[in-house]
Amino acid sequence: MFENASLSMLDQLGEFGLIDRLTQKYSPGNKNLVQGIGDDSAIYVPGKDKLQVISTDLFIENVNFDLMYTPLKHLGYKVVVAGISDIYAMNAIPAYLTISMAISSKFSYEAIEELYSGVYLACEKYNIDLIGGDTGSSVKGLVLSVTVTGEVDPSKKVLRSGAEPNDLLCVSGDLGGAYMGLQLMEREKRVFMANPEMQPDLEGYDYIVGRQLKPEARKDVIELLDSLKILPTSMIDISDGLASEIMHLSNSSGVGFTIYEDKLPIDTQTISMASEFNLDATMCVLNGGEDYELLFTIHQKDFKAIENLMDISVIGHATENKKVCEIVTATGSTFQLKAQGWESQE
Amino acid sequence: MFENASLSMLDQLGEFGLIDRLTQKYSPGNKNLVQGIGDDSAIYVPGKDKLQVISTDLFIENVNFDLMYTPLKHLGYKVVVAGISDIYAMNAIPAYLTISMAISSKFSYEAIEELYSGVYLACEKYNIDLIGGDTGSSVKGLVLSVTVTGEVDPSKKVLRSGAEPNDLLCVSGDLGGAYMGLQLMEREKRVFMANPEMQPDLEGYDYIVGRQLKPEARKDVIELLDSLKILPTSMIDISDGLASEIMHLSNSSGVGFTIYEDKLPIDTQTISMASEFNLDATMCVLNGGEDYELLFTIHQKDFKAIENLMDISVIGHATENKKVCEIVTATGSTFQLKAQGWESQE
Repeated sequence: MFENASLSMLDQLGEFGLIDRLTQKYSPGNKNLVQGIGDDSAIYVPGKDKLQVISTDLFIENVNFDLMYTPLKHLGYKVVVAGISDIYAMNAIPAYLTISMAISSKFSYEAIEELYSGVYLACEKYNIDLIGGDTGSSVKGLVLSVTVTGEVDPSKKVLRSGAEPNDLLCVSGDLGGAYMGLQLMEREKRVFMANPEMQPDLEGYDYIVGRQLKPEARKDVIELLDSLKILPTSMIDISDGLASEIMHLSNSSGVGFTIYEDKLPIDTQTISMASEFNLDATMCVLNGGEDYELLFTIHQKDFKAIENLMDISVIGHATENKKVCEIVTATGSTFQLKAQGWESQE
Repeated sequence: MFENASLSMLDQLGEFGLIDRLTQKYSPGNKNLVQGIGDDSAIYVPGKDKLQVISTDLFIENVNFDLMYTPLKHLGYKVVVAGISDIYAMNAIPAYLTISMAISSKFSYEAIEELYSGVYLACEKYNIDLIGGDTGSSVKGLVLSVTVTGEVDPSKKVLRSGAEPNDLLCVSGDLGGAYMGLQLMEREKRVFMANPEMQPDLEGYDYIVGRQLKPEARKDVIELLDSLKILPTSMIDISDGLASEIMHLSNSSGVGFTIYEDKLPIDTQTISMASEFNLDATMCVLNGGEDYELLFTIHQKDFKAIENLMDISVIGHATENKKVCEIVTATGSTFQLKAQGWESQE
C-alpha cells in the first residue's frame, strides 16, 4: 500500500490534480451549500436564527495514530467522528467539514484515496458535507487537520460551564474500551515486530478493537435527550480520559464532582482485557481516552426520565467544593482525581 | 530560542496548560462571539442575512517556511494573513480564526509564545478573533493549520467562476516581490551555512524581504472596490504564481485569458534582484507566489472607475478560447501559460 514506486504518481498529479481526483466523484448533499471545494473559500447559507458552531482537531502519525494497525479507511472515518463529536458536545448538529493533509513521500495516491473513502463514509453516515481543505508535503509522517462546523438553536446550546451543585453527572455508553483496544493492538504490534511470522491474535476482542478503530459520535444520544426534552446543564465529549473531562467541567462550571466507581459503565471485554494486562479497569476508564462518549450534567428533576435508559449511566453528582473532583471506590475509600495534561493546573 | 533545555517546560505545562497560558491575556473583541476558546467548540452569532465563508490552509516547516530566516512572530502573522486573504478573495469580511499546531521538541514555550504574538497582531490588525485550535507533538518540525471564517452579503459574493469573455483582468499591488525576497534569503542562508561568521546582506532590499516575511491581505482593495460600487465578476488571491491563479479562473469560468507582459506590475527592487540572479522578472511573477494580491475580473463598463487607480493594474482580458491562457511578451510573441501543480490538467 505504501510502495515508494507510487510516489512519483502523487508528484505527477500535483496539488490541484490530487484534490480534483479525490473529490471528482463527490457531490455534497446539503442544499444550503453555495460553493464547496474548488474556490478560495467555501460558502454556505447559515440556518435561520441558529448559532454557528466550529471545532478543529489535529491528528499526527505516531502521536495520535499508528498506521501499523490503523487501516487508512478507518483513520479517515475516525478523524471525522472525532470532529463531529465536538459539535454534538455543544448539543449542536454538525453540517460541514474541511480536512487538510500533510503527506510524506511514503504514501501512494491509492493510500490517500483509501483515507478519503473513510472520510466520505463518515460524511454520509452523519449527513455532513466535505467543503474544503489543503494538502502539502510532510517531511515525515502524516498530519491531518479536521475542522467541523455545525448549528444550534440559541436556547439549546450547552457549554461546559453550566453545571450547578447537586446536578447529576451522566455518561453515555461504556468507557475504557477504546483504550484497552489500543493496548491490545500495541501488544500485537510488539509481537509482530519481534517475529513477523506471527499473526495478530484479536479473537474475542472485536468490541474493544472496534471501539479503538471505528468509534462513533453519539448523535443518537443528542437526539434521545432532545426527544425527552432534557437539556443538559453542561456537556463535554470524552476524547481524553474520564478524569480529565470531569476536571474540565469542574473548572469551567466552578463546581466539584464526586463520582462512584461502582457506577462506571465498563464492558466485560474491557474488564477482561484489563485483567489480562494486570491493569485496574477503573484506572483505564479514568485515564484512557478516545471513547467519544458524552459526559453531561442534568437537573435532578430530569432523573426520572433517564433512570431506565440502558445507554445512559448516572455516575455521580456536582458538589459545592469548587474544583475538587473525587472518586469513591467500590470499597468506600475516596481519592482525588488526577489527569494527564493538567500538571500545571494543580 | 530553540534550546532543548526549555523542552521540559512545554512538557510540564501539558496541553491544557499550554493553551491556557497562550490565551490567558487574550480577549476576543467581536460581540457576536458566544463561546471562544475553552470548550469543545466555539459558538458565534452569524450576521443577519449573511452567507458564511470558510477557508483552511496548512503550513509545514521546510516545505512552506524556513525558520532559518523566518522569525516566529512573522510566521504567526503571515499564516493568519494567508488565511484572511482567502476570505477577501470571495469579497467577504473575515471574522474568526482557529489555529492548530504540531510542535516538535526543539521548540520552547517562549518560541510558541513568539509565534502567537504574531497571530494576535494579525488578529488585531484585521479585526478578527482567535476562537479555537488544537495542539500536539510533532515527530519532526512545526506544522500549522489555520482556518478562517467570514461573512458576505449574498449579492456581493464573488466566485472564481463568474468571468465572461471580454471582462478585464486586474491585479492589485505588484507581483514577484515575495518570490524574489525568498530567493535573496535563500542565498544569504547558503552563505551563512558555508561560513557562519558572515552577516546576511539584505541592504537595499527591505521591500522584497518585507513582501516575503510580512505580507498583508488586501482588505483595502476590497473596501476600495466596494466604495466604487464595482463588483468583480470573478476573483482569486495570488498565493501561488500568477500563471496558476489565472488558470484557476480560466478553468472555473470556462473562459481563456490573454495577458500582456508590459502590463505586469513589478517593483524596481524585484526587477533589480531578478537581474542579480540572472532570472527573468516576468517568469518570477508567473511562477513565484505568496504575494497575496487579488486577481479579479471586471466588466468593461467599470474600466473608467479604476483606470487611474495607482494600486490596480489591468493586465489583460478574458477570451472565448476556453481554457487557453496566453501571455503576449513585450516583443509581441505569444506563449501559452504553464504552472506548477497543473501537470495532470493539461
